[in-house]
Amino acid sequence: MPTVSNRGEIMPASPIRRLVPLANKAAARGLKVYRLNIGQPDLPTPPQAFEALRNIDRKVLEYSPSEGLRSLRMKLCEYYHRFNIDVNIDDIIVTSGGSEAVLFAFMACLDPGDEIIVPEPAYANYMAFAISAGAKIVTIPSSIDNGFALPPVEEFEKLITPRTKGILICNPNNPTGYLYSMKEMLQIRDLVMKYDLFLFSDEVYREFCYTGAPYISAFHLPDIEQQVVLIDSVSKRYNECGIRIGALITKNEQLRRNVMKFCQARLSPPLIGQIVAEASIDASPEYMLSTYTEYVERRNFLIDGINRIPGCYSPIPMGAFYTVARLPVDDADRFCEWCLNEFEYEGQTIFMAPASGFYTTPGNGRDQVRMAYVLCKEDLARALDVLAHALTAYPGYTLRDTLAQTAKND
Amino acid sequence: MPTVSNRGEIMPASPIRRLVPLANKAAARGLKVYRLNIGQPDLPTPPQAFEALRNIDRKVLEYSPSEGLRSLRMKLCEYYHRFNIDVNIDDIIVTSGGSEAVLFAFMACLDPGDEIIVPEPAYANYMAFAISAGAKIVTIPSSIDNGFALPPVEEFEKLITPRTKGILICNPNNPTGYLYSMKEMLQIRDLVMKYDLFLFSDEVYREFCYTGAPYISAFHLPDIEQQVVLIDSVSKRYNECGIRIGALITKNEQLRRNVMKFCQARLSPPLIGQIVAEASIDASPEYMLSTYTEYVERRNFLIDGINRIPGCYSPIPMGAFYTVARLPVDDADRFCEWCLNEFEYEGQTIFMAPASGFYTTPGNGRDQVRMAYVLCKEDLARALDVLAHALTAYPGYTLRDTLAQTAKND
Repeated sequence: MPTVSNRGEIMPASPIRRLVPLANKAAARGLKVYRLNIGQPDLPTPPQAFEALRNIDRKVLEYSPSEGLRSLRMKLCEYYHRFNIDVNIDDIIVTSGGSEAVLFAFMACLDPGDEIIVPEPAYANYMAFAISAGAKIVTIPSSIDNGFALPPVEEFEKLITPRTKGILICNPNNPTGYLYSMKEMLQIRDLVMKYDLFLFSDEVYREFCYTGAPYISAFHLPDIEQQVVLIDSVSKRYNECGIRIGALITKNEQLRRNVMKFCQARLSPPLIGQIVAEASIDASPEYMLSTYTEYVERRNFLIDGINRIPGCYSPIPMGAFYTVARLPVDDADRFCEWCLNEFEYEGQTIFMAPASGFYTTPGNGRDQVRMAYVLCKEDLARALDVLAHALTAYPGYTLRDTLAQTAKND
Repeated sequence: MPTVSNRGEIMPASPIRRLVPLANKAAARGLKVYRLNIGQPDLPTPPQAFEALRNIDRKVLEYSPSEGLRSLRMKLCEYYHRFNIDVNIDDIIVTSGGSEAVLFAFMACLDPGDEIIVPEPAYANYMAFAISAGAKIVTIPSSIDNGFALPPVEEFEKLITPRTKGILICNPNNPTGYLYSMKEMLQIRDLVMKYDLFLFSDEVYREFCYTGAPYISAFHLPDIEQQVVLIDSVSKRYNECGIRIGALITKNEQLRRNVMKFCQARLSPPLIGQIVAEASIDASPEYMLSTYTEYVERRNFLIDGINRIPGCYSPIPMGAFYTVARLPVDDADRFCEWCLNEFEYEGQTIFMAPASGFYTTPGNGRDQVRMAYVLCKEDLARALDVLAHALTAYPGYTLRDTLAQTAKND
């Protein structure tokens, strides 16, 4: 039998989706499974999206241009201008989700052996796309104890080698919910300038910033616009993850030419998704606000709830709709699997993403999970209740030892 | 400025899409451009597809499973069974078009430096996906003079090295329209067995076989089912290229696990496209027949027309809806550009894909073009007329020299 690729063998299975078969089995056993593992919001897609679908009046569902429909790119321009992101239609290349934008950015910028520096925990699939491109992600740990703030500049500088081609940030951050301050963004900008790097900036959660602190786009930073590669997606902001429409935005013409070769090879992004995305940009301010308000409430509710469970800790995320929380368990991978395989509480269980998959430094995040607050408050309440019961029932519950130890010492 | 990747630099621009900006400029000058460059049929998408679109009754356009909707995969199974392709639902992974299926097949099977053998001329984007995976496409020339039949087995064997991991065929063939005979398919099978290779078989044109000769799927071949990777797409058979739905089909479990990692990284194939594809499989026999009949007529008309133009030659394609024709020109790349940039006949011009982009052997196909018979007969008639006029007006028309030479010799 011919062997499969080593590339595929070394690629980690998605920490977000790896346990899906176990969750499906739990559901098949009749359990209600609270799915906090994935950023799949339960909120409605805007009515404009469905109206556009119903009004499709074509005879042929044909290829679109490889760079995306012109009308969508124009609409996206207007959208970015609202955020003071000064891009024009030629800077925007429409992709099959933000995922393809990351893949093409890596393919067009990085050769095998090239390195990019990414603060960890980081969105797990960056790793998969880097492996696809033969590139190396070099992670720099951020810590739950200071809310996953940007690591000191000196730590970045220690990691820079002749093969370093870029820095990748996700802002607001998935999985941590951290929002980089102007000071931090300027530090990144200085690094990018000093070492002549690309700045890959994944900003798909820009609509979801909760603390009043400003959202700083990579395109807001002075004098590096030729080095910025913005990754975007309509998935999260309009609750339409399934249409697979994202964008890669760059003012670097040479890079764009390079990216376009990969775009032409796959012919075109999804036509119907583009029509839906274009319509969604017209979602009403009321729609956007109600989505936003809902996340604010869920965030407050979930984080408060986590921090009330003995031994659990979550920083308060400033943006996006995830948090990385520390749990009193020996091994969050085992705990998450155990919740799906062996536990139930009143016919329910909980599905979380083990945080280890968001770190590359071995051992980091071992007692952490990522939770997405994509369920309604009632479900979050039940999920928290299930979590509290699961922890105390779990054989690797570490607080039991501590309590026992304390009792023994008393 | 950081440099872009060498990978992207060495990637050839798509011969199908590279000249699109020139065609758009010609259209902007007011010319009618007959676009024979791309496999974008003008035929209607089935009514079932549009009905499914109108009937989408969801609140959220959410992610689908990474391997695709179960209901679509079931429907695809039934479809393949009609062609005596014995696959089950677990063998099928839905992709964003056949393009993604090729990319993931290469990513999951090939490491940098690995080689696959492909008869040329070949679909140009295979090259792009191979470069993405760092793999090497080794081409084996087939000749227009024997209708692009499979090169002799000995020619394949000469190219096999320790790095050879597979053979890739497209059957019926894009760009040549060749349909491999059972004898040829068994020769390929023997090679695959003998050298322990993968057989990547792109069969997206199976509905379009015109000569009564049977379509042989790679899955019809005995004893190699674990080595077969079938590439498929609904784009061409239901005239819905824009929905971006394809499939990668393999019975090799280890390979499937590997492919699934790439699938999970990009989260999911397009949801709406999957709904449309599923409905399209219910297209009526009348619909399928009318599409088929239309291609039969166009094929006869186009090939006959080409062969009537002095110095032009096209074999008769047995399947798909392309042909590679030889033209009396010094350089088909220059000729195709010239048609768009400098020529017009009665306010019209023609857009063809230079065949050089479908060859990797330098010089091969230099006087050849790929034409797709995706326009109605009236347009094909005009396009042929434009072509005939373009040739005699073109500075690099080789028949002029021949005629002049003949006149001089007389």
